[in-house]
Amino acid sequence: MSEANFKIEDAPLPTPAEGEVLVKNLWLSLDPYMRGRMNEGKSYAAKQELGEVMIGGTVGEVVESRNPKFAKGDQVLGMLGWQQYGLSDGKGLNKVDASRVPLSAYLGVLGMPGVTAWVGLLDICQPKVGETVVVSAASGAVGSVVGQIAKIKGCRAVGIAGGRQKCDYVVKELGFDACVDYKAGKLNDDLKAAVPAGIDCYFENVGGDLISQYNATEPYAVKTFQSILTNRVKVQGFIVSDRMELWPKALADLAGWLAAGRIKYRESVTEGLENAPRAFIGLLKGENLGKQLVRLA
Amino acid sequence: MSEANFKIEDAPLPTPAEGEVLVKNLWLSLDPYMRGRMNEGKSYAAKQELGEVMIGGTVGEVVESRNPKFAKGDQVLGMLGWQQYGLSDGKGLNKVDASRVPLSAYLGVLGMPGVTAWVGLLDICQPKVGETVVVSAASGAVGSVVGQIAKIKGCRAVGIAGGRQKCDYVVKELGFDACVDYKAGKLNDDLKAAVPAGIDCYFENVGGDLISQYNATEPYAVKTFQSILTNRVKVQGFIVSDRMELWPKALADLAGWLAAGRIKYRESVTEGLENAPRAFIGLLKGENLGKQLVRLA
Repeated sequence: MSEANFKIEDAPLPTPAEGEVLVKNLWLSLDPYMRGRMNEGKSYAAKQELGEVMIGGTVGEVVESRNPKFAKGDQVLGMLGWQQYGLSDGKGLNKVDASRVPLSAYLGVLGMPGVTAWVGLLDICQPKVGETVVVSAASGAVGSVVGQIAKIKGCRAVGIAGGRQKCDYVVKELGFDACVDYKAGKLNDDLKAAVPAGIDCYFENVGGDLISQYNATEPYAVKTFQSILTNRVKVQGFIVSDRMELWPKALADLAGWLAAGRIKYRESVTEGLENAPRAFIGLLKGENLGKQLVRLA
Repeated sequence: MSEANFKIEDAPLPTPAEGEVLVKNLWLSLDPYMRGRMNEGKSYAAKQELGEVMIGGTVGEVVESRNPKFAKGDQVLGMLGWQQYGLSDGKGLNKVDASRVPLSAYLGVLGMPGVTAWVGLLDICQPKVGETVVVSAASGAVGSVVGQIAKIKGCRAVGIAGGRQKCDYVVKELGFDACVDYKAGKLNDDLKAAVPAGIDCYFENVGGDLISQYNATEPYAVKTFQSILTNRVKVQGFIVSDRMELWPKALADLAGWLAAGRIKYRESVTEGLENAPRAFIGLLKGENLGKQLVRLA
């Protein structure tokens, strides 16, 4: 994938019809799942059609409303895509309160990535106090929250990340117990050393040796399948959008931990829609640290 | 593995000490798990030590008892191993009632294989009415029960087995909806044709292309791991001995279905302990049909 796969187009500002709202998007979220949408074939969501506006989570401000649920000036979270303005019929659009947290947090720790971390760790893995949780892409939007929740729950948190800088961030700033730098070239040995008691929960964010699996054409071959039997492992694939019933509880926990300073986060901010393709390609290469965002205005 | 890996030894008949019983083993169960015990390294159970009596499930008759819980003539199920007589302190030894079912059934459909089928299908997979259940080694002791329970629960049952004869047995005698003969050489295409609505539950009995994976030195590479995410699959490794609390419920169900003629089974019987090694090697090659047993007396 290259920037040539993207095209920026100008279009007249739409006018909301009865029941619609026009939103000025302030922040666009870039997330690895978007790469999957670009593939042909079955994925876990409808695929991104060629020539359509790229999907994506956004936060912004209502500039015109013909929907009684929204007023001009409301700050809203939605899926309005890679564009500066978006029209919505109000479905899937939610007002957010940016008086205590930055608006962009609703795309990260208080949004889909944070809830993904919460659901995967607490609803699926369910580690017990003292158990060891390992998470890949540990400095990313999801991984960083996984490890911090693990610590809050009394677990040993071990991250896997690419490069010394990311690993330092994961341990020194986020408070993980250890971090393995897969770019050091001895992932297996280093990981083994970091988990003397073995691994109770592995939160997998990358699908292969690294996040680049999203771009791979040959499927990654897993050679440890036997271990699923030997160690009675449960492997569970999940999409956070399947678990909407858990969002309120997850968001309440995350907001509480954030307010109490128990969860920290960083953002990698790219300026301007025109730079979104490059930032997205960089995200798949692991160039970001923390949540990757595009500032649209 | 070959018969040269086994040695038959004569030893004097032991005399039970206080609290012990001497059991004459009538039937020995041969099961694929035994192969895993012979490996070095961590497995899901203690490994089989060289020079020790091979472990194995047995049913037999108490010939001498110095344990108040057992009387001479009691028929008992236990893990007394590959031998004609076994000494037990009573732990793990259970009386069984062979007045309504053959004694050997306690090593198959009313024993570990049957309960394995029940636990894996009903406690872990939990298929719903109308869903499609696929099971490998479908004519074997576990697989044959999996498919029949699936039918009882209103599911579509599709087996995978090696050869026309086994597939005919699976469909015509056990009542599966379809069976794919992996030896026909086009497993993927044939399986796809047999599951027009996809697969809701796959009960994996073989760990590779076929049961011979137990003997493989190179791990089988699973290239569909991405699908676990895309399809939100749950993969759960389990050992039935971890779920002892489910055995009474499972055995009650199985006994009821068996009495009602809703579950059928076949046995492959090998005569004499001296032929057990050859039968075991044959089992790993899929030479048996149904539960593999050795008649010891």
